[in-house]
Amino acid sequence: MRIFVFGGDGFCGWPTALHLSKSGHDVTIVDNLSRREIDAKLGLQSLTPITELQERIAAWRELTGRIIHFEHLDIAREAPRLDTLVANGKPDAVVHFAEQRAAPYSMRGPDEKRYTVDNNISGTHNLLVALTQHSPDTHLVHLGTMGVYGYSGNGFSIPEGYLDVAVTDDHGQPQSREILFPTKPGSVYHMTKSLDQLLFQFYAQNDALKITDLHQGIVWGTQTKETKLDPRLINRFDYDGEYGTVLNRFLVEAAIGHPLTVHGTGGQTRAFIHIRDTVRCIELAVGSPPQRGEKVKILNQVAETLTIIDLARLVSDRTGAEIAHVPNPRAEAAENELVVSNETFLALGLDPTLLDSALLEGTIALSKRHSDRVDLSMIPARSAWNRERQKQIFENPQAAAA
Amino acid sequence: MRIFVFGGDGFCGWPTALHLSKSGHDVTIVDNLSRREIDAKLGLQSLTPITELQERIAAWRELTGRIIHFEHLDIAREAPRLDTLVANGKPDAVVHFAEQRAAPYSMRGPDEKRYTVDNNISGTHNLLVALTQHSPDTHLVHLGTMGVYGYSGNGFSIPEGYLDVAVTDDHGQPQSREILFPTKPGSVYHMTKSLDQLLFQFYAQNDALKITDLHQGIVWGTQTKETKLDPRLINRFDYDGEYGTVLNRFLVEAAIGHPLTVHGTGGQTRAFIHIRDTVRCIELAVGSPPQRGEKVKILNQVAETLTIIDLARLVSDRTGAEIAHVPNPRAEAAENELVVSNETFLALGLDPTLLDSALLEGTIALSKRHSDRVDLSMIPARSAWNRERQKQIFENPQAAAA
Repeated sequence: MRIFVFGGDGFCGWPTALHLSKSGHDVTIVDNLSRREIDAKLGLQSLTPITELQERIAAWRELTGRIIHFEHLDIAREAPRLDTLVANGKPDAVVHFAEQRAAPYSMRGPDEKRYTVDNNISGTHNLLVALTQHSPDTHLVHLGTMGVYGYSGNGFSIPEGYLDVAVTDDHGQPQSREILFPTKPGSVYHMTKSLDQLLFQFYAQNDALKITDLHQGIVWGTQTKETKLDPRLINRFDYDGEYGTVLNRFLVEAAIGHPLTVHGTGGQTRAFIHIRDTVRCIELAVGSPPQRGEKVKILNQVAETLTIIDLARLVSDRTGAEIAHVPNPRAEAAENELVVSNETFLALGLDPTLLDSALLEGTIALSKRHSDRVDLSMIPARSAWNRERQKQIFENPQAAAA
Repeated sequence: MRIFVFGGDGFCGWPTALHLSKSGHDVTIVDNLSRREIDAKLGLQSLTPITELQERIAAWRELTGRIIHFEHLDIAREAPRLDTLVANGKPDAVVHFAEQRAAPYSMRGPDEKRYTVDNNISGTHNLLVALTQHSPDTHLVHLGTMGVYGYSGNGFSIPEGYLDVAVTDDHGQPQSREILFPTKPGSVYHMTKSLDQLLFQFYAQNDALKITDLHQGIVWGTQTKETKLDPRLINRFDYDGEYGTVLNRFLVEAAIGHPLTVHGTGGQTRAFIHIRDTVRCIELAVGSPPQRGEKVKILNQVAETLTIIDLARLVSDRTGAEIAHVPNPRAEAAENELVVSNETFLALGLDPTLLDSALLEGTIALSKRHSDRVDLSMIPARSAWNRERQKQIFENPQAAAA
C-alpha cells in the first residue's frame, strides 16, 4: 500500500513509519518538524540523542534498502500544497499523527492554547477537505486519545466509540439511540481530539470518507524492533513536565535516583500502551478499513489500566525509588475508575505488552545509559490548568502542600 | 452594562447592537466587516441598500444621542489586539455573532469549507482565551443554531441543550446521566457550531467562564423598531442562494413574481424566529447569566416550527405566487419532524412573533420597494453538499428532475 504518515518524525510517527516500511508499504513521511522546534523553544531535548530526519531516513535505506520519502509541509498552514500532495499521491491510507499532542503544553498559556487549537483543528480539517476533493477512497487512520471522555468513571466500561442510550419520547415511550460516547475533555489538547471526532462524523456522513479514529492510552517505552536496529534510528524519549508521559517520567526518575513525582494522591486511573503495541495497532487498523458510507470506526488502543500510584509502586518495587506526592497542576478528579474495552484489537490479533514485562527493565536501562542528558530542572510540571491551580501551586506552594 | 457585540455589522448583529444601545447599554461593535467583503467577492448585494458602518453609527448618534463605539478587528487573526481590547474594556457581557453563518457558503468549495472552520473555531477560541486571561467575570452570549442536532426527529422534543439518558453499567444496573444533547450537523457551518459547544463546555468547566449558547432557528424579516427609525439604519436583507434564508427568499420571490423555489418535497421541518425576536432574546439572555462554575446555559431561540412546503403555501396563499419544486442541493432527510422546547425564553417574557403576523406583509412590501435591486441570477443555490449532489443537480440536471 501507499501510505502517508503525517507527523512521521514524532514519538509515535517515526516508529510507525519504520514499521509500515518494514512491512513492505510505500511510506511517505509528511511533517513540519514542529516537535523539534518546540524542543528548541522550550530548551528541552529528547533523553535519547535523536538524529535529523534526513539522517534517520538515510540510515533506514542503508540498513534495509527501503526508501521512505519525506515532504516538509505544514498541513495547518499550507493547504494548497497538501491538496497537490494528496491529488498526486492518492494514497491507500494516511496515518495522521500531525497534531500537538501534549496536554500540559496545551495548558501552558494563551499562546499554547491557541496554537494547539489552530494547529490541530485546521490541520485535521485541511486533510479531510483534501481527501474529499482529491482522494475520497483513501483510508484515514487518526490518532485520538482515551482522554476525550474525561475521567469520571462510575461503574461502566468505556465502549469503542459509541453508546446505546435509552431516552423517553414525547409520548412517554422509551426509544433506543446509538450516539457518539459523550466527551468531557480535561485539557485544551484533549478538547481538540474531541472536536476531531465531530469533524470525522461529518465527513464520514456527508462525503462517505473511510475513517478510523484510535483512542490511545498513555504510551510508554520508546524503542521498537525497528528503531533498535541502529543508533541513528533511535526514537525520541520525553521525560520533561510538558511532553513526558507519566510512566516514562517515573522510569527516568528511577534511573537517576530522583523520587517518583506523583501528582496528588495518584488515585487517577489511566490506560497504558507500549510504543511497540502502538505501531502494531496502527498496522492492524490500516489493514482493516471501514467501507465508504459506514460510520467512523472507533477503536480503543490500550493494553491495560492502572492507577498512577500503583504504577509508581510498580517502579518503586523494582528500583527502590522513593515516591513523592506533589501538588497536581491539573484540574481533574483526584480519583477515578476506568475500564476500557479493547476487544477489536484483541480480535485483530494484538497480544498486548503488559507493564510487568521485561520491557520495563529495558526502558530503565536506556534511561541510565543516557542519564547524563537529563536536565533535572525540566522534570517538574510548569503548566497549571487554571488560575486556581496556578495560585495554589506556583504562587503559594506552602498552602498547596498543606 | 458595557457590552461588546462581536459581528455587530451583520444581519443579526446590527439590530442587536441598536437594541442594546436603545436599552441604555454602553455598546461597542467589534467587526472585521467580512460579510461586506464576501458580498463583494461573490458579486452579491443586500436587497436593502445598507450604508457603511460608520454612517450607520453616526446616524444612530444623530437620532438618539447615543454613542456606539467601533473596533475594526478580526478575532480569528488578531488575537493580541483582541486581548488588549478585552483587558482594557472588561465588558460585563460580550455577544458573539462573529462567525461565518451561511450553510450553503460553507459547502461551496474547499476554500469556503476551510475558511468557515478556521474563522469560526479560531475566532471563538481566541475570544474564550481572552476572557479567561483578562476578564473571567464577563458573560459570553453566543449565537448557535438549532441545526447542530441535524434533522432526523423521531418523536421527541429537542430539549434545551442537555439530555438525560439511561445507560446500563458493568453490573447490569441502569444509571442515569445528563449529557450534552448529541449533535449531528448537516453542513460545515453547522459543524462549527457543534464544535463551539465543546469549546464552551471545556471553558465553563475548567475556567468557570459564564457562557450562554443560543440555538437559534432560521431568521426571517429584516427590520426591527430601531432599524426602521431612519433609512440609514436599515438592516441587510439576503435573498441569494448562499446567504438568503428560506422564508426571506420566498418573500422576495413572491414580491417579484418568481415561483417559490422549494428544495425537494419541502417535507423538511425547520424552526423559525423573526429578527425582532432575535434582538429581544439576546437582551433577555444578557440579563440572565449563569453563575461562575455553572454549566453552559443553552437556550433554544425559536418561535415556532413549520415544514418548508407549509411555509411556501402560507406565502403562496397570501400572494398568489406559484410553487416550484427544485432539486435539493443539500444532503439531508427529505422529510423530518421537529419539536423544540423554548420554555426558558417564554418564562423570561418572550412573546413570540408568529408567521401569520402582519410582519409577513411588511417584509413583502419592503421586498417590492427594493425589487429593482434583485438579481434573478443570484436566487438559485450554487453550493452542492457533496459529489453525488453536485453531479445530480449541476452536471446532469435532467436526471435530478426525473
